[in-house]
Amino acid sequence: MKGRWVLGIDIGGTSLVVAAVPVAGGKPNAIRSESTYPERGPEDAVKRIASMAEDVIEQTLKAEGGCRKEFVGVGIGCPGPLDLDQGLIFTTPNLGWDGFPIRSRISSELKLPASLDNDANCATFGEWWLGAAQGVESLVGVTLGTGIGGGYIERGRLMRGASGSAFELGHTTINFEGRPCACGNRGCLEAYASGPNIASRARDALTVGAKSVLSAMVEGDLNRITAETVYDALLDGDALSARLIQETAELLGIGLANVVNLFNPEMIVLVGGVSRAAEYLLDPLRESLSNRAFSSAVDACKIVPGSLPTTAGVIGAAGVFVSDEVA
Amino acid sequence: MKGRWVLGIDIGGTSLVVAAVPVAGGKPNAIRSESTYPERGPEDAVKRIASMAEDVIEQTLKAEGGCRKEFVGVGIGCPGPLDLDQGLIFTTPNLGWDGFPIRSRISSELKLPASLDNDANCATFGEWWLGAAQGVESLVGVTLGTGIGGGYIERGRLMRGASGSAFELGHTTINFEGRPCACGNRGCLEAYASGPNIASRARDALTVGAKSVLSAMVEGDLNRITAETVYDALLDGDALSARLIQETAELLGIGLANVVNLFNPEMIVLVGGVSRAAEYLLDPLRESLSNRAFSSAVDACKIVPGSLPTTAGVIGAAGVFVSDEVA
Repeated sequence: MKGRWVLGIDIGGTSLVVAAVPVAGGKPNAIRSESTYPERGPEDAVKRIASMAEDVIEQTLKAEGGCRKEFVGVGIGCPGPLDLDQGLIFTTPNLGWDGFPIRSRISSELKLPASLDNDANCATFGEWWLGAAQGVESLVGVTLGTGIGGGYIERGRLMRGASGSAFELGHTTINFEGRPCACGNRGCLEAYASGPNIASRARDALTVGAKSVLSAMVEGDLNRITAETVYDALLDGDALSARLIQETAELLGIGLANVVNLFNPEMIVLVGGVSRAAEYLLDPLRESLSNRAFSSAVDACKIVPGSLPTTAGVIGAAGVFVSDEVA
Repeated sequence: MKGRWVLGIDIGGTSLVVAAVPVAGGKPNAIRSESTYPERGPEDAVKRIASMAEDVIEQTLKAEGGCRKEFVGVGIGCPGPLDLDQGLIFTTPNLGWDGFPIRSRISSELKLPASLDNDANCATFGEWWLGAAQGVESLVGVTLGTGIGGGYIERGRLMRGASGSAFELGHTTINFEGRPCACGNRGCLEAYASGPNIASRARDALTVGAKSVLSAMVEGDLNRITAETVYDALLDGDALSARLIQETAELLGIGLANVVNLFNPEMIVLVGGVSRAAEYLLDPLRESLSNRAFSSAVDACKIVPGSLPTTAGVIGAAGVFVSDEVA
């Protein structure tokens, strides 16, 4: 591939991130980010992304020399589900931009060829390309936030599936008689272990009388509890929060035991923000996984926190463009 | 690859099957099978396999011409878990030949290079190579018998995993608070839907007073009920058996919904003996799967019975040898 730089764009429910990444791999030059304001609509976001991208291009060329042709393309990561063939957003509860042709709009705005993949795939790819999972032959990435997602990479290639919706980890069933899930089913992993469900389990426990600093932290308004509140309370030594996080790790371990028994991967990497809670999650997760998955598969599988907690998504989006061009 | 024939060997708890399969694909010439008699030990089986193989070779060359050099190798399929690197059987409840170097023993007995893979992988490969799943880009095979197993093939390549134990479908959890499983866990798919557990669920129902012809079929000795008895009773119009098979299909659908949400495959093929019950399984399985998996992934996935109910394993074992040589 001619040219030295590729743009990565990470579109999230909270923020938009744009970076210039060397085609050959390496630290991103120039990163810009700002709030998404999804309610202003996708066209507004595209314009602001384009403006950030022009800044990033200008700054990179100023520092590193060369002309605009050094930029070979732009890789976009976006919450799914997406129509990868058409480059469309299908439905995104966090954005509300249903049916928007995100890939072609950004491509024409920047006059660069563009790729599109979902944010969890991109973040997993980022850790494989330049993060904690470099050189790993079979890799599972797990993201934990508003939802639970992930990606699978074998020999450098993302598994996308027959309709671009592979590795929807959050909606695998771990208890078919279990907690109702926002998707309409029961007992999805996400119905237990996503951020909002961690908060919901905290509220359930407080409602039946559990003692905890959580109530005071939200001045008695339990609806204000988030997964971050629970995590902060854990750091403060709160016993209920410690138990909730431990249970979350055990439930993740059950979901990942299914993944280990099916994929038998060389590594599982916790990707994105959740990697920062790794020290509280990894031990109980590993124990629960060991109880459920075959020992030969457990022994073969390293479980590690990602090394790019804030940039895996934008780096991976750029990497997916490079990888798809080479393939 | 020089040579026209490859031997396939399918080692099961019940029978040993040996066949000559064209390297280029096509119907097996000469098939031999006999009972396994696992209690006689693996060396006895190896000797009888070798003798059957010599028969198959002789008969093939007599009919088709050429000399022994036309046989390029032998592919072995065997119940797992296996050590694929070393060519060993780890532990096989149905055979009891723990630690036996099956690949090297058969290779040296036949003086041919040998490959080894687990029986479910081989059967899946057989359907992909010469059966109902030819040309399918991403394929899940499912076997249902004493255990539940399967295999995953993407672009002609079996997923084996980091330690050769990928796609242990039977021991994925569908209800972490559910039925105890022989493996020591709770709520594995196999704890609900394997042959012995179909029989066990029938006994549970009869014990609490359900009416059915099953009791009469086994002359009141409920321990004699097998999945086959339940299937025969279903064909006889027994309502309890129809309900048990329908529930089994629904439970399989939950386990396969997890597979569909993770792999997003183009096709699921029911492999081996279970493919004969497909007309009773497919509709409730598909409905349960549709309720649980993402619609874009469900829409992309054909679910079909295999077309090689008795020979997928032996054909696939041969095919795996050819495929590994080419790779």
